[in-house]
Amino acid sequence: MKAWVIADNFGIENLRIVERAEPQPGPGQVVVAARAVSLNYRDLLVTRGAYNPRMPLPRIPCSDGAGEVTAIGPGVSRVKVGDRVAGTFFQKWIVGELTEATARSTLGGDIDGMLAERVLLSDEGVVPYPEHLSFEEAATLPCAALTAWNALIGGHLKAGDSVLVQGTGGVSIFALQLAKLMGANVLVTSSSDEKLARAKELGADAGLNYRSNPDWEKWCRSETGGVGVDHVVEVGGAGTLERSFKAVRIAGHIALIGVLSGAGGTINPLPILMRSICVRGIFVGSRAMFEAMNRAIAQSRLRPVIDRTFAFDQFPDALRHMERGAHFGKIVVKI
Amino acid sequence: MKAWVIADNFGIENLRIVERAEPQPGPGQVVVAARAVSLNYRDLLVTRGAYNPRMPLPRIPCSDGAGEVTAIGPGVSRVKVGDRVAGTFFQKWIVGELTEATARSTLGGDIDGMLAERVLLSDEGVVPYPEHLSFEEAATLPCAALTAWNALIGGHLKAGDSVLVQGTGGVSIFALQLAKLMGANVLVTSSSDEKLARAKELGADAGLNYRSNPDWEKWCRSETGGVGVDHVVEVGGAGTLERSFKAVRIAGHIALIGVLSGAGGTINPLPILMRSICVRGIFVGSRAMFEAMNRAIAQSRLRPVIDRTFAFDQFPDALRHMERGAHFGKIVVKI
Amino acid sequence: MKAWVIADNFGIENLRIVERAEPQPGPGQVVVAARAVSLNYRDLLVTRGAYNPRMPLPRIPCSDGAGEVTAIGPGVSRVKVGDRVAGTFFQKWIVGELTEATARSTLGGDIDGMLAERVLLSDEGVVPYPEHLSFEEAATLPCAALTAWNALIGGHLKAGDSVLVQGTGGVSIFALQLAKLMGANVLVTSSSDEKLARAKELGADAGLNYRSNPDWEKWCRSETGGVGVDHVVEVGGAGTLERSFKAVRIAGHIALIGVLSGAGGTINPLPILMRSICVRGIFVGSRAMFEAMNRAIAQSRLRPVIDRTFAFDQFPDALRHMERGAHFGKIVVKI
Amino acid sequence: MKAWVIADNFGIENLRIVERAEPQPGPGQVVVAARAVSLNYRDLLVTRGAYNPRMPLPRIPCSDGAGEVTAIGPGVSRVKVGDRVAGTFFQKWIVGELTEATARSTLGGDIDGMLAERVLLSDEGVVPYPEHLSFEEAATLPCAALTAWNALIGGHLKAGDSVLVQGTGGVSIFALQLAKLMGANVLVTSSSDEKLARAKELGADAGLNYRSNPDWEKWCRSETGGVGVDHVVEVGGAGTLERSFKAVRIAGHIALIGVLSGAGGTINPLPILMRSICVRGIFVGSRAMFEAMNRAIAQSRLRPVIDRTFAFDQFPDALRHMERGAHFGKIVVKI
Repeated sequence: MKAWVIADNFGIENLRIVERAEPQPGPGQVVVAARAVSLNYRDLLVTRGAYNPRMPLPRIPCSDGAGEVTAIGPGVSRVKVGDRVAGTFFQKWIVGELTEATARSTLGGDIDGMLAERVLLSDEGVVPYPEHLSFEEAATLPCAALTAWNALIGGHLKAGDSVLVQGTGGVSIFALQLAKLMGANVLVTSSSDEKLARAKELGADAGLNYRSNPDWEKWCRSETGGVGVDHVVEVGGAGTLERSFKAVRIAGHIALIGVLSGAGGTINPLPILMRSICVRGIFVGSRAMFEAMNRAIAQSRLRPVIDRTFAFDQFPDALRHMERGAHFGKIVVKI
Repeated sequence: MKAWVIADNFGIENLRIVERAEPQPGPGQVVVAARAVSLNYRDLLVTRGAYNPRMPLPRIPCSDGAGEVTAIGPGVSRVKVGDRVAGTFFQKWIVGELTEATARSTLGGDIDGMLAERVLLSDEGVVPYPEHLSFEEAATLPCAALTAWNALIGGHLKAGDSVLVQGTGGVSIFALQLAKLMGANVLVTSSSDEKLARAKELGADAGLNYRSNPDWEKWCRSETGGVGVDHVVEVGGAGTLERSFKAVRIAGHIALIGVLSGAGGTINPLPILMRSICVRGIFVGSRAMFEAMNRAIAQSRLRPVIDRTFAFDQFPDALRHMERGAHFGKIVVKI
Repeated sequence: MKAWVIADNFGIENLRIVERAEPQPGPGQVVVAARAVSLNYRDLLVTRGAYNPRMPLPRIPCSDGAGEVTAIGPGVSRVKVGDRVAGTFFQKWIVGELTEATARSTLGGDIDGMLAERVLLSDEGVVPYPEHLSFEEAATLPCAALTAWNALIGGHLKAGDSVLVQGTGGVSIFALQLAKLMGANVLVTSSSDEKLARAKELGADAGLNYRSNPDWEKWCRSETGGVGVDHVVEVGGAGTLERSFKAVRIAGHIALIGVLSGAGGTINPLPILMRSICVRGIFVGSRAMFEAMNRAIAQSRLRPVIDRTFAFDQFPDALRHMERGAHFGKIVVKI
Repeated sequence: MKAWVIADNFGIENLRIVERAEPQPGPGQVVVAARAVSLNYRDLLVTRGAYNPRMPLPRIPCSDGAGEVTAIGPGVSRVKVGDRVAGTFFQKWIVGELTEATARSTLGGDIDGMLAERVLLSDEGVVPYPEHLSFEEAATLPCAALTAWNALIGGHLKAGDSVLVQGTGGVSIFALQLAKLMGANVLVTSSSDEKLARAKELGADAGLNYRSNPDWEKWCRSETGGVGVDHVVEVGGAGTLERSFKAVRIAGHIALIGVLSGAGGTINPLPILMRSICVRGIFVGSRAMFEAMNRAIAQSRLRPVIDRTFAFDQFPDALRHMERGAHFGKIVVKI
């Protein structure tokens, strides 16, 4: 069976399609015929070697994928052959809080990922997904959707709360969609009026082009009666966090998710205490959260937004598409 | 100015319209020209003397009303003349938990209620309401809507959760509407197929006629994959609670709100512990909850369901309409 | 190896010591040489057939025990031979909420219990315990201590809160000790002045003999400035719950744990809503809670209170001692 | 009556004792004869003009004080003449979350503070304190003790959790004492072995001299089995926060309180997300929290640690004593 690997060295140019032996499920294991994967910014960092420069190579990339169970090992009862499932980002984070032990089980990072024709997973590391979704749509859930869910649910968002969503990448669009189905007031920023228009079609209550209006923290305040938003889904990191401290209300909540503006930046933390802000680091989520999210997605018949679908052998093109940052929603590779 | 009072004795037959002096606002007080009140089952119990047989008479009934501020006393800054406001059920429960002291401040119970042309209230005891609502619609919020909100929010309902709503009275219909805007899966029971059809128009996901199918606890389980619902909005009291213990999932949540089936019944509490159930008594809610709910109602443009509107002098007819129990949503009296 | 079983029929008189084959650990299993078990009221109900009349016989009784790991099966990494461990009441409830599936895994109920020389358990179903405890002391933790912990922690008890503990049985004494190490104000009732004196030695702040002063709900109020206690650890069930409704403050918390006053009684639930009470059913707790409790016990060097220790062949005498209800703390059987 | 004021300009050298008219209580106001104030680092910043350079002068400094009610205005029922009370840091933050409106009511900042013979306060802005405390001890509670309480309670600290307390200033010593009465495992750092010895007398479980061992984040991990502490009470700010990110466990909690290491520093926020940390800004606390803390202090008979007491006219010396940073616990000025 075929798989993509980061081969001898990091870098998009070192990605190779290789032939691997068919995986055989041991006790408590399942084989999933992956049918689609979706890309996250992390996959780009992993491929470049920026995520973990000491990661052993070769490694199969991509944390997020969905497919069909084709074989199960002894003692497996959670799923059966023919079930349609997604893999879980953390293979060992089942429920409760993340721990040192469960953190080191990420697909496409600590262990081989989903970008292969057949993938060997723990039976505890797969999740049935809502029936109305295609393989491509289901492949977008494990990291991006779950991160957005954790950001909102973990921040105790309730109907009527206001949420700032930064940009229109994968996590942000899911945050928009999920916040809307929870009854929230969603504000979106973007560098593009066209993307803002599409965000409004998805339910956004207000949008701001931060190219033409860079002071988005003031806009957040004026859109909320001067108070500031209840929640920020912060994907920019150090480059945007100081503005987010001003955009959020006193005693508000910032879900710190991404570092799209760069991993090395620094910020002055003083406003956190002066404004009683809660900054909560979000690292995807547990399988129990995934299952809860799936119930909400099934209930609302939410459809993930797919920017573009690439063929299996176009994976490097898909990564470069992500690199350009012009996408709206998720980038998918069919297998 | 005119007001309805429970006059010399309890009973619908002892309700009288009386002439009262125009109220003058002292420090921290406001006068509200009430334009509509809505009825709750409690108003019927109060009128009959069943709620508090030692309540001093005469008393102006009705906890829930909305109107316009016509005068403010010294030091009032929360509202101004011309503001459209609803009164708060508890005049003193502002935020946090209910206490002995704040509990004894209920309109139409501990003190005179809203069924008068002009009402004197604390400026802490009024709340601006969403602008898209009429006086009649706003009058339905203080008790019924807020009770439903507290039942759901206080139970940490999240999108994708399942909720059983019993019947189609005021609280139940609000619970249905609010749970839907939070992304929940809502099951409704009723004695009438026609009412079930209307509940589905309001968004109910499933309905059961408990006349033809009295085993609604089994239906709740079958609708939830055998697990039971996450939440029950329990308005029946002792007459339905034991079934609710079976309808709810293990470790599920029952918001105990009403005793429509009678105040004297008893139940065996054993399933609470055997099934790790959380039974939470709901007594309307605080002003802070009211304000949070109003944001959600404004955001979703939810419209309260009014069963029927009566003229001021038809108040006893309105109570008798409630007594018959055939209503769907709220009963309103215009002033 | 030897084991006690409820043999052909239920009843203390049908308990037998039998010879069983030495258990061999399969994948993910461990063998524990049990060195002590402690008794719970549930063990008495199980033995009598009152807990589950359809339980298949013979069955090894007793949920709570501690011992030493003597063998581990393939793939076991949580513990090693020589570790001192307690079994978990629910073999499958690891973390998060109890579910239908995890609930059906109780030792000495759904499956064989701990009253045997060697016990075969899932490696997920054992927990290392604080080093300062003896086998006898550790054997008291799995059900009684964890139930008390869950009652207090799950009710968000904080330092300075007041707690009513009913009587001086196993759960109640643990609730007293644990509440004290959390900084709470603990009120204890008992039928015996001598037991009250011992409770005060363990830290109880106040005690009432309910024989001489049956109106303990009034005493709770007077001890708390008329307000009522913040928490009730309710072990009596229907026979005491209505008084507890009056003993607890408005918006207070009742952890419903036991039915020592009988399983068939009924109560009027009306005060739950009129006083905004939260009644939460407690069914022991998860392994994660057990681990958290162990940290607190290790930190405080809490020592469980053992009423009396019986030899292995005196198990029926130990049950009869429990039946008489005169104990203070836990009854233990050495193996 | 006499009062200290920051007179024409900021700076310790511009502090003056002035004569002011006796305050007269209006409706809802009380006069408190202040008998002691305690100093916080904020008072030093306020005096220097570093806290709010635009603060109108003259201003009476000091947020924290205790005394006796000597007069009450019309409508006051919360306290009576002769009651011993402390002022609340925020005069308007009663309960619930801090808001923009309630934040602008700080004593010795937004309005005149407690360093005067008689102080005019809102009756909502005073709190009776535990009877076992002297005026000097009670004066230490409003800011330092409440900040520590909020840091711990708001982080859901439970018995058995581990807490890192940085240094031995006022907030840190209260955090140590309060965490101990909640059953926690407390680690303390200090630049002085003698202070560490005193911290251990107060209950600290372990101490590290960060002068001789600057890698205190490694020590935190080694003291917690390699996991990291559950909570950090972070008083250093930017200068220590990056080490705290390494000292805390995955998914742990950092209460961000102070900026003793300077207000201008910056940090890289990346570990917040990579380690799922929750960083919560703490700005003292509400009156409801103060009342809850007082119950815990009364229950445990905790005694605040007073470093040194100065006479009224020595206030500048007291500030300079704080400036040197050699104190252990609180600095008090008697009035």
